[in-house]
Amino acid sequence: MTRPRSVEEHAETIERLLDPLCTEPATATVPLAEAAGRVTAEDVRSEVDLPLFRNSQMDGYAVRAADVAAAPLALEVAGDIPAGHTVPVVLHAGTAIRIMTGAPVPDGADAVVPVEDTELVLGRDDDLHGAVVEVRRPRSVGEFVRERGSDLRRGDLLVPAGTRLAARHLAALASAGVEAVGVREPLRVAVLSTGSELVASGERAGFGQVFDANGVALAALVQEAGAVVSLREACADDPEAFGRLLDRAIAVSDLVLTSGGISQGAYEVVREVVVPRGGEVTTVAMQPGGPQATALVDGVPVVCFPGNPVSTQVSFTVFVRDLLRTAAGLPPAPRRRATLAEGLRSVPGRRQFLRGRTDGDAVVAVSGPGSHLVAAMARADVLIDVPAEVEALAAGQEVTVWAL
Amino acid sequence: MTRPRSVEEHAETIERLLDPLCTEPATATVPLAEAAGRVTAEDVRSEVDLPLFRNSQMDGYAVRAADVAAAPLALEVAGDIPAGHTVPVVLHAGTAIRIMTGAPVPDGADAVVPVEDTELVLGRDDDLHGAVVEVRRPRSVGEFVRERGSDLRRGDLLVPAGTRLAARHLAALASAGVEAVGVREPLRVAVLSTGSELVASGERAGFGQVFDANGVALAALVQEAGAVVSLREACADDPEAFGRLLDRAIAVSDLVLTSGGISQGAYEVVREVVVPRGGEVTTVAMQPGGPQATALVDGVPVVCFPGNPVSTQVSFTVFVRDLLRTAAGLPPAPRRRATLAEGLRSVPGRRQFLRGRTDGDAVVAVSGPGSHLVAAMARADVLIDVPAEVEALAAGQEVTVWAL
Repeated sequence: MTRPRSVEEHAETIERLLDPLCTEPATATVPLAEAAGRVTAEDVRSEVDLPLFRNSQMDGYAVRAADVAAAPLALEVAGDIPAGHTVPVVLHAGTAIRIMTGAPVPDGADAVVPVEDTELVLGRDDDLHGAVVEVRRPRSVGEFVRERGSDLRRGDLLVPAGTRLAARHLAALASAGVEAVGVREPLRVAVLSTGSELVASGERAGFGQVFDANGVALAALVQEAGAVVSLREACADDPEAFGRLLDRAIAVSDLVLTSGGISQGAYEVVREVVVPRGGEVTTVAMQPGGPQATALVDGVPVVCFPGNPVSTQVSFTVFVRDLLRTAAGLPPAPRRRATLAEGLRSVPGRRQFLRGRTDGDAVVAVSGPGSHLVAAMARADVLIDVPAEVEALAAGQEVTVWAL
Repeated sequence: MTRPRSVEEHAETIERLLDPLCTEPATATVPLAEAAGRVTAEDVRSEVDLPLFRNSQMDGYAVRAADVAAAPLALEVAGDIPAGHTVPVVLHAGTAIRIMTGAPVPDGADAVVPVEDTELVLGRDDDLHGAVVEVRRPRSVGEFVRERGSDLRRGDLLVPAGTRLAARHLAALASAGVEAVGVREPLRVAVLSTGSELVASGERAGFGQVFDANGVALAALVQEAGAVVSLREACADDPEAFGRLLDRAIAVSDLVLTSGGISQGAYEVVREVVVPRGGEVTTVAMQPGGPQATALVDGVPVVCFPGNPVSTQVSFTVFVRDLLRTAAGLPPAPRRRATLAEGLRSVPGRRQFLRGRTDGDAVVAVSGPGSHLVAAMARADVLIDVPAEVEALAAGQEVTVWAL
């Protein structure tokens, strides 16, 4: 048997295999209403000035600042501009025009007097015919007027490439009249569970059978990492059936993930199918998750995890999660330092990823190392990363923890 | 005019209005495959032991520990148990049975010898008839045997109520054969934009018209906060049309959000419709976002924001976001302290939420206070919370920032 690979070595293998997916994402154009959470594939520049036109910052009266310099004084109300008024209006010297927030400031006006600083002394709010308004205080040129282009100029960058579109980006794009935007397409990832012992939840598990947990868990992990599930299916330990399933998966996917069938046993269906197609099965010095495999089948990367649900989840988290996140334009999942609240032991020679639960900066292992402890893992919120050379850690020592 | 309300007072008003939505969420039962990201409505207990049966932790040979105490020694291979083997098998003293990881350990066996510590001295991997295996080292009772129920006992808690279901929870539920799970239903939130000046993106904005940004922005904010958009529509400043739209929204929603039509102007459509139906329009001492309104129409809360896209987004973030997150079982959005990289000025008497951009613990305002600066807001990642009484802050002073 050859020397087991280190976690770092196997991570590099998978990184090389998935590199084209991360660096050359497919793109699509989607309407703004469907673009929330998507990542821009290119810079988006504005084709318009923002604001689109000179407009009022307040409900009030558009005036010439020079005309109200001696306020308080009264001005004839010569017109009324509601928001949405589509005919340009001209203000004549010595008059005021009522204006609503956001409405176009008339030519000739250079200030807006807020309604709070005014009073109609003739006429009514709903009938401005022959009205006169008292302006209580002077305003300087430009006050409460938003100039065209004062937020953004035509040609300026609205949203840079690589931006995960949140509400504020969509608001800016929509304000500039952008209808649709070029975004990265999520990776299409197939999730294949293998094992003659598997039954679907909802069926009856006979003696010796177990429920397939890897399908639903890997599908959720893939989605959490910003990709979509192209195919999710379980398969018995039948090489011919698995070969056909793999071909179906490859046809519709950018990446195929498998669980089970790669260890040293006699019925290793994934090993039997992928090795003749150029795949490589290896042992990684880690716990859980020792057996690992990779292949490039018909140009599509295939990453194979061991079948135990804890091993599968840990393997995905360690080897694939951040690559998918990168491809999706997401930041890497957080890792941080935490302090062990209790000591722990580890098997030297293997990097161990124990399931842990944090409380502030403290962390405690929630179970032993057994990779069958799938219920215990549900109580964890981190993986405790114990380096390969470590045999024991005492309470109070620092460890790296990976967020789950 | 009455004294403006403080931000805290208006936040309390909205909190009371939305309280039933947060404390009495609707629930639904969904299949596990659709449950990722949903929040459990109740404790889920296991109806089975996990593991379901005593099984092997390794590929190897099931033996009696007593029989291999004097290893190295050779044992007759009396059988073969692949994973998924559904017929109970009995191990007779002095023999070994080949077993795969996860396969049921035969009655009579109390240890598993990993395949790496064995060698077939008679027979072949693919033909165990009359085979003999050499066991190289002894194993103690229980080694590499996973006992039934060692992960979880029937009746134990699998996943507590209020858990946002991630892959690890789904794996545990699936392993226990759970098919479907009771989860909170997301709140259904209607998003209504008002304003005769609005045109949809894709249409041509004539003079005086602007593109509706609030619809797409509020819809994205609602989804980011864990709710779903029940209806999204824009409406001109026509009280009759808005009244009909409001009724349609109420019929399909747990909450209605509106933008525009609540300030002091002459054409305030939301004000005209909600006040006669018991709504309350108020002025809040904040910038942006002074005009605010709330109503309870036919038992459905209605929260009304001012129409400017920056004001709308800030109002949602300050008053509604964390309430929706609570209802969805999400933690509150983060607020933290940051240090101003540049000084800033503020209007005393109003709590100001300036758009800021952080770099580590430093923050700088990305624009002036103008609520029309929608493109500038796209460059921000936080709101800088400047208390109402503050007139100026110097570089180096600490402020609270709200994550966008």
